[in-house]
Amino acid sequence: MAIRRLRDSSCSVARSLSLLGERWTLLVVREALTGTTRFETFREHLGLTADVLSDRLATLVEGGILRREAYQEPGRRTQYEYFLTETGRELHVVIGALQQWGDTNLPRPEGPSTLRRSELTDAPVRVAFVDPEGREVHHDRVDIIDVDGVDERAQQAG
Amino acid sequence: MAIRRLRDSSCSVARSLSLLGERWTLLVVREALTGTTRFETFREHLGLTADVLSDRLATLVEGGILRREAYQEPGRRTQYEYFLTETGRELHVVIGALQQWGDTNLPRPEGPSTLRRSELTDAPVRVAFVDPEGREVHHDRVDIIDVDGVDERAQQAG
Repeated sequence: MAIRRLRDSSCSVARSLSLLGERWTLLVVREALTGTTRFETFREHLGLTADVLSDRLATLVEGGILRREAYQEPGRRTQYEYFLTETGRELHVVIGALQQWGDTNLPRPEGPSTLRRSELTDAPVRVAFVDPEGREVHHDRVDIIDVDGVDERAQQAG
Repeated sequence: MAIRRLRDSSCSVARSLSLLGERWTLLVVREALTGTTRFETFREHLGLTADVLSDRLATLVEGGILRREAYQEPGRRTQYEYFLTETGRELHVVIGALQQWGDTNLPRPEGPSTLRRSELTDAPVRVAFVDPEGREVHHDRVDIIDVDGVDERAQQAG
């Protein structure tokens, strides 16, 4: 019920969380971003039970974030690999934003476990708001415009 | 147990989610970003029970994301308002990234409910990876460097 309400929500944060908000789901995506594709590798790296991992992978395939491909090693039964779709790869910026926030606000004594660099220039990258010219805008200088609220007020006025 | 493991995790995505991953927590932050401060307003806008809202506000105050301030209206008992700290305001980029992903990948027929604009230029803003010069880097051109893995490999080699 709660999930359905969130999925139908007018707010895309709520809709995103209805798909991604379950514990472990975003961690499976983070793991896939580092190149993991096989069930056993996900399980080893995340320390999940097979049941929980199966459930999260199924949610992500159903949600169009991962696609599943069969493979077979000689003498073994068919198994599956999981690859991020373009929709899934677009979550990199969400994961990057969460990681950056955690590194700043919940730091480890030994520093960040992960860094991000531009493949082209090798320079470190951060997640930020940018304007159409690609210039950074500080988060305190970003206004939130409630489109539905504006419509409602316009209708009431009209 | 699971929460403790996540909090202790070497991965800052996991640590961030241990604080923010409970259903509704990020939606309370999103609501605070739009200027909501009072319990009753959070409750009306989010449609939460008082118990769940109290719990999420307590988590966010304890986590240093919101600070609580007492206020009193004539003839009524002391009540509290909730304001984002700098740590909390830094979540704007996480919420913005989730919203952008949802608007693209789980769109409503009537379009986004919320837009973000630069307070300075009124131009629309997006969330993206940027390099130290503030230039945007496409998410498929961002490499993830596993620092702990590199250390471990260096130790094994050394």
